[in-house]
Amino acid sequence: MYRTKTCGELRLSNVNETVTLAGWVQRVRDIGHLVFIDLRDRYGITQLSLNADSNAALCDLARKLGREFVIQVTGKVVERTSKNTNIATGEIEIYADTLTILNESETPPFTIENESDGGEELRMKYRYLDIRRPLLKDVLVTRATMIRAMREYLDNKGFIEIETPNLIKSTPEGARDFLVPSRLHNGSFYALPQSPQILKQLLMVAGMDRYYQVVKCYRDEDFRGDRQPEFTQLDCEMSFVEQNDIFENFEGMVKHVFRKTNGVELPDFLRLTFADAMRLYGSDKPDLRFDCKIIELNDSLPQSEFPVFNNTLASGGLVAALNAKGCAAYTRKQLDELTDFVKATHRGLSGLVNIRFNADGTVKSSVDKFYTEEQLREIGKACGAERGDMILIAAEKVSKVRKSLGDLRLELAKRQNWIAPGSWSVFWVVDFPLFEKDEESGEINFVHHPFCSPHPEDLQYFDSDPLRVRAQTYDMVMNGSEILSGSIRIHQRDLQNRVFAKLGLTEEEIDHKFGFMLNAFKYGAPPHGGCAFGLDRWVMLMTGGETIRDSMAFPKASNGKDLMMDAPAVVDPKQLVELGIAVVNKD
Amino acid sequence: MYRTKTCGELRLSNVNETVTLAGWVQRVRDIGHLVFIDLRDRYGITQLSLNADSNAALCDLARKLGREFVIQVTGKVVERTSKNTNIATGEIEIYADTLTILNESETPPFTIENESDGGEELRMKYRYLDIRRPLLKDVLVTRATMIRAMREYLDNKGFIEIETPNLIKSTPEGARDFLVPSRLHNGSFYALPQSPQILKQLLMVAGMDRYYQVVKCYRDEDFRGDRQPEFTQLDCEMSFVEQNDIFENFEGMVKHVFRKTNGVELPDFLRLTFADAMRLYGSDKPDLRFDCKIIELNDSLPQSEFPVFNNTLASGGLVAALNAKGCAAYTRKQLDELTDFVKATHRGLSGLVNIRFNADGTVKSSVDKFYTEEQLREIGKACGAERGDMILIAAEKVSKVRKSLGDLRLELAKRQNWIAPGSWSVFWVVDFPLFEKDEESGEINFVHHPFCSPHPEDLQYFDSDPLRVRAQTYDMVMNGSEILSGSIRIHQRDLQNRVFAKLGLTEEEIDHKFGFMLNAFKYGAPPHGGCAFGLDRWVMLMTGGETIRDSMAFPKASNGKDLMMDAPAVVDPKQLVELGIAVVNKD
Repeated sequence: MYRTKTCGELRLSNVNETVTLAGWVQRVRDIGHLVFIDLRDRYGITQLSLNADSNAALCDLARKLGREFVIQVTGKVVERTSKNTNIATGEIEIYADTLTILNESETPPFTIENESDGGEELRMKYRYLDIRRPLLKDVLVTRATMIRAMREYLDNKGFIEIETPNLIKSTPEGARDFLVPSRLHNGSFYALPQSPQILKQLLMVAGMDRYYQVVKCYRDEDFRGDRQPEFTQLDCEMSFVEQNDIFENFEGMVKHVFRKTNGVELPDFLRLTFADAMRLYGSDKPDLRFDCKIIELNDSLPQSEFPVFNNTLASGGLVAALNAKGCAAYTRKQLDELTDFVKATHRGLSGLVNIRFNADGTVKSSVDKFYTEEQLREIGKACGAERGDMILIAAEKVSKVRKSLGDLRLELAKRQNWIAPGSWSVFWVVDFPLFEKDEESGEINFVHHPFCSPHPEDLQYFDSDPLRVRAQTYDMVMNGSEILSGSIRIHQRDLQNRVFAKLGLTEEEIDHKFGFMLNAFKYGAPPHGGCAFGLDRWVMLMTGGETIRDSMAFPKASNGKDLMMDAPAVVDPKQLVELGIAVVNKD
Repeated sequence: MYRTKTCGELRLSNVNETVTLAGWVQRVRDIGHLVFIDLRDRYGITQLSLNADSNAALCDLARKLGREFVIQVTGKVVERTSKNTNIATGEIEIYADTLTILNESETPPFTIENESDGGEELRMKYRYLDIRRPLLKDVLVTRATMIRAMREYLDNKGFIEIETPNLIKSTPEGARDFLVPSRLHNGSFYALPQSPQILKQLLMVAGMDRYYQVVKCYRDEDFRGDRQPEFTQLDCEMSFVEQNDIFENFEGMVKHVFRKTNGVELPDFLRLTFADAMRLYGSDKPDLRFDCKIIELNDSLPQSEFPVFNNTLASGGLVAALNAKGCAAYTRKQLDELTDFVKATHRGLSGLVNIRFNADGTVKSSVDKFYTEEQLREIGKACGAERGDMILIAAEKVSKVRKSLGDLRLELAKRQNWIAPGSWSVFWVVDFPLFEKDEESGEINFVHHPFCSPHPEDLQYFDSDPLRVRAQTYDMVMNGSEILSGSIRIHQRDLQNRVFAKLGLTEEEIDHKFGFMLNAFKYGAPPHGGCAFGLDRWVMLMTGGETIRDSMAFPKASNGKDLMMDAPAVVDPKQLVELGIAVVNKD
């Protein structure tokens, strides 16, 4: 070893020991007769002290050190006169006797500090320098800690980690597959798995009973928003279980991971139905770190001539409100911003009605013309408004109102700082519908995937009213992000065939894509169910990142490129000849 | 849960408990007034007992059960009158009160037993049934146990598990890359990693200090022998280390894994130089579960007119022997078989000389004409021959003699049962050469990979005599198989460039393939080194498998096909259009 100790472990109790450290030069301060070096490694920073009086040559060498030089130092641990309480090693320093330069460094393209001067693109190109920043290094350490805690919990519960193959058959569902041309079987392709869904179900057919895997998955999607072409799932499956068994097991696991990672004790998880989530929060992944429910007013609106509300009610729409606590004093400009927010194309409201319950007891509204003060107070009461609150009301088609108010409550939370830093909201959303209708094509689609089991009690509607059938499907929502999705699976061949048929697959398609799975179901498939965690997102939430890029060592940029390696890239034409493929210019 | 207990856990202490089990019907025995069912799950087998007198309907149902039906049973645990000491649950049985069929099964295409009647191809097609066989199921459980022990050890030593990307840049070295066409960047390709070698080195540059990953790797090789297109490595890297640190750390890990998996305490590992391994065993991965060294006779051959030996010595070749202990009585047929064995094209000997030291004290030899009995006894003495032994002597070019006798000692061990069942031999081979010369092209090639550091003391020969330079490279050999390969890496940009140049890469090639890595070396790369374990092979050795296929859940057949999923396969032409590629017929 080039060292006897790391840069993070020396304390007062080590005083007088002679130690050897190795690491990177964070900075050099030359104050004439003394030179100080901050030496950094993964574990921390230790101050080295060199005395020009006693060792002039060493000081001369130290003065030549640049940032990020790799050095090795031997010396005695001494107590510092001016202690630094900000770092764990701040009570000691090393009186260096020898110093060896192990490697030099050019000046890095950005500063290796949490508040770096490098933009994101530059830092992704030099990711190996970006990871030296404690912020990102700590994310990778936390990620490993979290995964370790997951394994610990699952291992103790009798789960077996089993690796499934990554060169599989293309059965695109929802997203596009990445394909891998086969050299030995000209014209044939492997696909990279979008998830090990079918394989883990086959492991249940195989009797493995409890399976998990931390596994890379691949989706060839257009890069918008927070997506990566390869991402990591914690993938799990259990046999002989019902929904409740899954809930208990994985709620326990998430609590264990929190305990081991950040010491937070999570309370028991709420189980919110999909219907309630949509009705109360306008989202299937609401953020419950603050309250602010959607209040439906269809049945409690006072009589009035206000045409917007009356027309909405007449056409079967929804009139609903949010109580914007403490927002009565919003300015015209702020109100306009909220109106613009809900008018955005993807929300589609035409506007918002507001009723302000001012601190002085007066009431003001944008519909004063149509409602008496008493009627406004009546609406306020239905919404639980107090002095200082503002009620915001939307009236439109049900789905638009819910979507818009769901987004608006998040926007208000941001503006009003309703979310306490360090607070957590983790719960289940249950009873998703099995199918949904594509509004444009009118086609019936699955909501999760085609292997989710219908609720036994809703099977009676399967043919007559398929959209009414709930699935045994569930999500786990953390701080407003979906971090888990799962279901009890179909284990009966006949039922699986009925679902495929309902989705419009022909017998030929079913056989080509899923024949091997349906075949497996002939030989004693047990009842089973499971789930998959979006690991990158969970890590992001635990480490305060803003995109899942922030939770990976070597992410792709938003155009799918690895800026560090410059991948994808043009390859040697000989490689394509061997593979029996040619590039076709798409332009 | 569909069960309160598993089929593997009930004991005498559970007698009188009412339990619910679920699992697969292993077999049904109907003896008239009683029906017995062996119920199987991952954890074991439990006997169910149904009484026709007390519950005729239940017995009727049970008689209809076929093999591999999935059932759920509730009943009372009772002590068996005739106990089965072969299974852990053999002291009890369940008096079944209720029985529910959870799923039916067609008759499986082969028997679900360790000694199955299904051939390998059939079992791979129905891998989900193959895995129900306890033998294969136990392999997967052992594999998980081993990996858990590895992680446990490495986590305790401060290693961080970090996931590296699988969609990277193609930098083929040695083997062919699998390519993944990019849809968004027409004409560009990702490659699947042959190993995370460069990425883990960049993690060291990034200061992560100690890294590991259980990771899939991909090589598009022709399928011969024991190869899989995707396989698993335990990949590791450490900073600020020398070879000895790596040896100590991973020797400790292997011992830990043995302790946790099969309870074996391995002795400290020998460190055998590559030169000694070749000289003494004719192989860089010798099996040391038995002795039988190669004995070089060039300096100790008695004077004789035997032209084969004399010509060999004159031309700088090698005369060397094996002492085939206890083989003096080999028949002519057996001797011919050994001669044919060493004459195989890839070994290339022209024959073997034998000297038999018979049990009765006489000596016989195939070269009686050229040597006196005294001379033969002299050779025998040099080889440590005793009564009953046979000395086999080869004379040829050094490399042929070593290769042939190395193979021959393995062949003798097999024939003579020299390897005790359950014995282990695990050790290091060190000091590999850095380069080797391709015998045909005369080109200089790397022995391991181009990132291995030369021995500092041999750097002086780098230009004058490159083949003399030893690398800081090492393998771990287990029972005659290489299960680990590693090295101290080059961390100096200049030296790395010199190695690339020595391998014949142009500056342009170096820049295109490795530019990002050499760039990283500008910014303070620490001294580092590491290794990678071939996990599939290690699991195979621990579980007594014959090919690495036997240690994976879903392996490919020898033609690279997944027989269960039927992959690779022809894909929808629309997918190729989207990817901007076309199939070119190779015939």
